[in-house]
Amino acid sequence: MTEALRVALAGLGTVGTGVVRLIEENRELIARRAGRPVEIVAVSARDRSRDRGVDLSGYRWADDMAAFAQAEDIDVVCELVGGSDGPALALARDALGAGKALVTANKALIAHHGLELADIAERTGAPLLFEAAVAGAIPVLKGLREGAAANRIERVYGILNGTCNYVLSAMEADGRDFDEVLSAAQAIGYAEADPAFDIEGTDAAHKLSILASLCFGTRLDFAGVETRGITQVRAEDIAQARALGYVIRLIGFAELDEGKLFQRVHPCLLPLAHPLARIDGATNAVVAEGNYSGRLLFQGAGAGDGPTASAVVADLVDLARGQVGHSFAMPASALEPAETAETGHRSGKVYLRFEVADKVGVLAEIAAAMRDAGVSVESLIQPALAGGDSALIAIVTHEVEERCIDQALQKLAGSDSLQAEPMVMHILNA
Amino acid sequence: MTEALRVALAGLGTVGTGVVRLIEENRELIARRAGRPVEIVAVSARDRSRDRGVDLSGYRWADDMAAFAQAEDIDVVCELVGGSDGPALALARDALGAGKALVTANKALIAHHGLELADIAERTGAPLLFEAAVAGAIPVLKGLREGAAANRIERVYGILNGTCNYVLSAMEADGRDFDEVLSAAQAIGYAEADPAFDIEGTDAAHKLSILASLCFGTRLDFAGVETRGITQVRAEDIAQARALGYVIRLIGFAELDEGKLFQRVHPCLLPLAHPLARIDGATNAVVAEGNYSGRLLFQGAGAGDGPTASAVVADLVDLARGQVGHSFAMPASALEPAETAETGHRSGKVYLRFEVADKVGVLAEIAAAMRDAGVSVESLIQPALAGGDSALIAIVTHEVEERCIDQALQKLAGSDSLQAEPMVMHILNA
Repeated sequence: MTEALRVALAGLGTVGTGVVRLIEENRELIARRAGRPVEIVAVSARDRSRDRGVDLSGYRWADDMAAFAQAEDIDVVCELVGGSDGPALALARDALGAGKALVTANKALIAHHGLELADIAERTGAPLLFEAAVAGAIPVLKGLREGAAANRIERVYGILNGTCNYVLSAMEADGRDFDEVLSAAQAIGYAEADPAFDIEGTDAAHKLSILASLCFGTRLDFAGVETRGITQVRAEDIAQARALGYVIRLIGFAELDEGKLFQRVHPCLLPLAHPLARIDGATNAVVAEGNYSGRLLFQGAGAGDGPTASAVVADLVDLARGQVGHSFAMPASALEPAETAETGHRSGKVYLRFEVADKVGVLAEIAAAMRDAGVSVESLIQPALAGGDSALIAIVTHEVEERCIDQALQKLAGSDSLQAEPMVMHILNA
Repeated sequence: MTEALRVALAGLGTVGTGVVRLIEENRELIARRAGRPVEIVAVSARDRSRDRGVDLSGYRWADDMAAFAQAEDIDVVCELVGGSDGPALALARDALGAGKALVTANKALIAHHGLELADIAERTGAPLLFEAAVAGAIPVLKGLREGAAANRIERVYGILNGTCNYVLSAMEADGRDFDEVLSAAQAIGYAEADPAFDIEGTDAAHKLSILASLCFGTRLDFAGVETRGITQVRAEDIAQARALGYVIRLIGFAELDEGKLFQRVHPCLLPLAHPLARIDGATNAVVAEGNYSGRLLFQGAGAGDGPTASAVVADLVDLARGQVGHSFAMPASALEPAETAETGHRSGKVYLRFEVADKVGVLAEIAAAMRDAGVSVESLIQPALAGGDSALIAIVTHEVEERCIDQALQKLAGSDSLQAEPMVMHILNA
């Protein structure tokens, strides 16, 4: 087969223009590898006049990307518009419904509507691919769906959001506080003007739910991800963690827990020797544990035009080669529903940070609450603070069930010794 | 398609029995993912009576595995016999020639005869797969052949031999010397009774030549790999390197250098901050740099029955799904011949270790040879040795062309100040 694979690009933002540049620059190599050319035939975006730094004159311009779903001369629609609903969803439904392949980098779309879209795809025989939706350039969906296909996988976790990892590792590098680092990251384009999706953990949760479904054979359950972002992490937490031998990273963690699905995105403490503790900046990394493979780790650039384009075009090459299977490693109808796991019985070490009144008896009050709830303290730091009448107490517990931590905090709730909500971070237990 | 994929296993050593166990244990999961059962129908090995800890009574026994190539009820032959020639090669040729798929974990076979076998496979339309031949459980061939397919890759390198990495990291951990660690590794099964293929770098060179071909689109050139093992690495080298901020690892490194092919397996120094410097024990890791993806890293168990079986059965799942393309990412006939690159102009920092007579003027002699060859010294350690009349001098140079190092060593050749061949190790420049 030497006819070109004909691609329509919906969306010409950073990723879309990256895809145009990649296909132009690596055109011949891609044709050699794919066995046929991969050609952009049409493009669409909101603003035709904007200078995107790439020559679009060779491609048909469509004012309405919805037309791609019905166009006779298009084999694949690349949805690079973004947003979990609205035009992206409509285009995805229509393209797949019309039997066209859909390639997307849109994690929100897949996390919310992936099963519906996979159902449509299976009904019409149209491939649905979204390697770029998780961990940028890293071929982790392919690696797990195909490379680890022989394994029962019961645990997958990783650093899934480059913005959060950049912010946390920058805070670690120079001791600055969250707000300051975030502003600096926005100024250089490492964080969005509206960073909520990233820093509140939503983006990582989208990706985690996709990984969990693909690894465990369970139905996508984005709503079941317990999600907390990094906005409450302070410079002091990073310093205390470091003093105790840990770094702080936003970790997405999913596990099958006696057949129930546990999914959590939280800032966590990692021992310095953990492979993910060395992942700095905007890099992403994913670990999966298979019952035969053992621990597999995939690492690379999690975002950016080039890396994301690399993953989008890898999907196009798979399509051109005719090597495409089920989006979630098996038919969507074969995925099993999974109850959300309880967390109270989960055990591990926990980091607690209390902001307290600097007065007699506070430490005794906290220690008593811990003791009464059966929480044993491994180490405790009360750093001297410059001025003020408040103090910080940072604690790392011995291994303990999460329900005990909850009990200890309930005992302390309402105490006028506490000047703020305690900060709780789990220590990665893997 | 719900008919089983019918597999014959040739070879029932560690890997073969691992494949049997995996397919038994994960049978249902594999069928769900592959869309059809994967079934072993026949097995063959030298000694039928040996207890392998798995029940083989459900499979047809073949005294002569050569019969698999013609058997009507076999779709795939798994060659797990080993050896670059002899029965493994004969079986591979016959099976592919008869149009049967071939899955192998045999890196020596592929490094020596991969192109011939790919040619046969392309002629008969039979798939040839060998994910398990490189880096055990890590789906790195798939990740590069498919996941990075959109990229021009000009550099691929990594830790490709678990035995060497185990020995080097054990030497590092407790200061023991090579022979002692190797004996201990043999006693616990981490090194073969005849360890030559591993410790002399041949095994890593097999894997590197496969990676280079697949990444660069060049013809396999195992003979072109400049190979040196770890037998000359001493405890003192590791200590000196550490004092200077480096660790020592056996690195396979391949690069397209102005269209010419550079392939080298050498013990190298890695800065402590390099991601590969933290890879300890029998773990493998591969880094590839794509022009859009940036740096991708794949890490996991490089050997062992379970991890290798995981990769073998991943190939079987690809076959069952019908998702198989060209073994080297493009037709073997499309791979380009590549001249072997010269190395004299390559530049980087270099570690040199001299064993010298402990007498006046030796240091001056070495320093003069360096100066005359244009080699500038960044740091030098002359550790005090316990007793004897010899001394060690360890040097790390500034960035320098390799030809200058050769010149310096030529100047020193034959000097009666040197009591042994100098040890030269490059510092990884990536």
